[in-house]
Amino acid sequence: STTVTVNGWVKSVRRQKNIAFAVISDGSSEQGLQAVFADVTLAKSFTNGASVRLGGQLADSPGRGQDTELKVESVEVLGECDPEVQTTYPIQKQSLTAEYLREHCHLRARTESISSMLRLRNTVSMSIHQFFQSAGFLSVHAPILTSNDCEGAGETFRIAPTSRDLSTQCAAENDEFFGHPAYLTVSSQLHLEALAAAVSRVYSLSPCFRAERSQTSRHLSEFWMLEAEWAFTQSVDDVCQVVEQAIKFIIDRTVATSLTEDAEHLVEAMERPAWTRIKYNDAVNELAAHQTATKQFVYKPEWGKPLQSEHERWLADELVRGPVFVTDYPSALKPFYMRLNDDGRTVACFDLLMPRLGELVGGSLREERTNLLIANLEKHNLSLQEYGWYVDLRRFGGAPHGGFGLGFERLISWIGRIENVRECIAMPRW
Amino acid sequence: STTVTVNGWVKSVRRQKNIAFAVISDGSSEQGLQAVFADVTLAKSFTNGASVRLGGQLADSPGRGQDTELKVESVEVLGECDPEVQTTYPIQKQSLTAEYLREHCHLRARTESISSMLRLRNTVSMSIHQFFQSAGFLSVHAPILTSNDCEGAGETFRIAPTSRDLSTQCAAENDEFFGHPAYLTVSSQLHLEALAAAVSRVYSLSPCFRAERSQTSRHLSEFWMLEAEWAFTQSVDDVCQVVEQAIKFIIDRTVATSLTEDAEHLVEAMERPAWTRIKYNDAVNELAAHQTATKQFVYKPEWGKPLQSEHERWLADELVRGPVFVTDYPSALKPFYMRLNDDGRTVACFDLLMPRLGELVGGSLREERTNLLIANLEKHNLSLQEYGWYVDLRRFGGAPHGGFGLGFERLISWIGRIENVRECIAMPRW
Repeated sequence: STTVTVNGWVKSVRRQKNIAFAVISDGSSEQGLQAVFADVTLAKSFTNGASVRLGGQLADSPGRGQDTELKVESVEVLGECDPEVQTTYPIQKQSLTAEYLREHCHLRARTESISSMLRLRNTVSMSIHQFFQSAGFLSVHAPILTSNDCEGAGETFRIAPTSRDLSTQCAAENDEFFGHPAYLTVSSQLHLEALAAAVSRVYSLSPCFRAERSQTSRHLSEFWMLEAEWAFTQSVDDVCQVVEQAIKFIIDRTVATSLTEDAEHLVEAMERPAWTRIKYNDAVNELAAHQTATKQFVYKPEWGKPLQSEHERWLADELVRGPVFVTDYPSALKPFYMRLNDDGRTVACFDLLMPRLGELVGGSLREERTNLLIANLEKHNLSLQEYGWYVDLRRFGGAPHGGFGLGFERLISWIGRIENVRECIAMPRW
Repeated sequence: STTVTVNGWVKSVRRQKNIAFAVISDGSSEQGLQAVFADVTLAKSFTNGASVRLGGQLADSPGRGQDTELKVESVEVLGECDPEVQTTYPIQKQSLTAEYLREHCHLRARTESISSMLRLRNTVSMSIHQFFQSAGFLSVHAPILTSNDCEGAGETFRIAPTSRDLSTQCAAENDEFFGHPAYLTVSSQLHLEALAAAVSRVYSLSPCFRAERSQTSRHLSEFWMLEAEWAFTQSVDDVCQVVEQAIKFIIDRTVATSLTEDAEHLVEAMERPAWTRIKYNDAVNELAAHQTATKQFVYKPEWGKPLQSEHERWLADELVRGPVFVTDYPSALKPFYMRLNDDGRTVACFDLLMPRLGELVGGSLREERTNLLIANLEKHNLSLQEYGWYVDLRRFGGAPHGGFGLGFERLISWIGRIENVRECIAMPRW
């Protein structure tokens, strides 16, 4: 046995006549440490949630459920969770609903499910860095405050300094802090393109913001996004290849550190040799045939229309039964920056659909041809002046390039089989 | 010699009668690749800034300045930077001022100085992750949108969705997107404390925002901050120790990858066995004595007053001639959350001052005693209701804990000897 000092919080306590037990956790692993009190009086003041420091001997455990236990010799209660507040302590032992815990965001990391999720986020973040660093990408930080809206759609948040009276500011719209209106970024892509046009390969794990009052389980107003852009890539297949390799790498690390118990879907995806790729055109044909046979869909699958969630779900869950890249959507459905294919009506893009989740990643080649880009800006009613800097990237030595964006909370949701993205981030904003 | 294909941008081109030379760079290292054209016509269309793909033999170089060179056999110009736009191409070969490059933010990463800085940021970010991961910290993401202002001071940015007419929104202040006013975070600290109260050790490299119209070389409206919080630490010396170890680790990695040529100050700081620690009280005495002797300072050093920049500079540059932790400032000078010392008038905090830079890090033990924290909130006129969640962290098993915040761009500025923080971030907002 070894003499140790252990810091942590009391997760449970059980007193018998001549012995007492407590589970202590510092949040660093799923399982707490079993503490055994030969002297019952030592555990006298223990209540759930109290922060304590224990001294004693670490020894093999005769009990079930753990290999080692702590034979407690000394106790210091660092912070009480005393009987008076005990009844009001929100993190009780019984299982608590996700909704209840969201109301107690500041304390919910004390539960097993949320602390496990935090450890999973940490592992996934680190494997993202490992993957892109080993592939020669630079980790960069694009601006959060921006004057343009990457997608040309989507609701944005506008910002203003608090120092000036807001009503005064409304009266004098022209007098802005930055000399022009400023918004929270919805994507770092355009700025990453500027950096990739200088250092070739960049990625970023950054916060993004969308002012959608959406109450689905897949949307947050503030979320984190992995985005990567790189120069000198010339086919959408190459971009898909990087995405597939990255996700397989992440899965490998997650499974290796056994961070999720329910890992069957991960192993299946990792071992699947090459994830299915299907053109939008063929996907619509498959969907239409299935519709004719079954009348299953509410929305009729039709070329030129967006794929609905029910369509995406059927493609991944039923047709492919695994991850599937749907590529080459009609240009009219996609943002101005995607590269036009030779057919003149589709763009070199993809969405990666995952079983039970839907869209996880979107990416494309970016239009590097100045004249086509300018035509596209005009078609989308976007100002040439505002996007002049973006056109510059093409006028001055534009290189073929592409990239993708991956919703970080959706990845956590898919890997950890966590149904709602609100339980995939420490403190959700929605 | 080896047959290779090389992608990059033309940095310079020099044509002679029977031979031509060009320097090609993809931004992955400081030095470009020398390309040699035995067939001068191959380099005919080369202009600075053009993006090209070259095929040829990589061979030992007889010339000075490089070990290897590319004997070019085939050329593909992927994107022109053609003679027409050439004269307007903002990134000309002659040296460009920082001010000029800031006006061309989207192109300035094509210069050696900014691409070097991006590579330095990448290395420093990665060594931050390595250090904290090996010390058992979890990388976490605290919210960017927040309803309270960590410092109780500082100008914040307020946000509103663009979907509603801004003037309508001003008329009906109560109708907020989140049900209450939302601001951009000035620090993740308070939220990191909540997470450290569950998983013990957390850190975060995240964007922060301050709406200061400050034109100094050390301030940005949008900057990145490394923050760490951990439970069960009980002295400010321990917090300083972690900061010193972390910075020494980062320096070590930076120097090892020879990312800065001017590394004398880094080696000096790294090899200095234990960085000087001096209490505010003693620092003021030293400053006062120096003032009596020299009358050097504009502001009189006096107990109870903040240290001015000139004081901080003298302490680091002259008195200590190296990094110095100034600890235990008067409580009246510091935010509400810092832990009161037993003397009842100072708090367990520190600022780390660096030569030629000034403040790089600030940190403290956090007040974990509920009654003292509540008294402090009242003293600072902060609402008990608004900070109720923060008080909860103490009511329910509060543990002694501490942490720090480090301005990432200031660190880059100090390591890389880059004078202005605006040249330490890809696309500055100010």
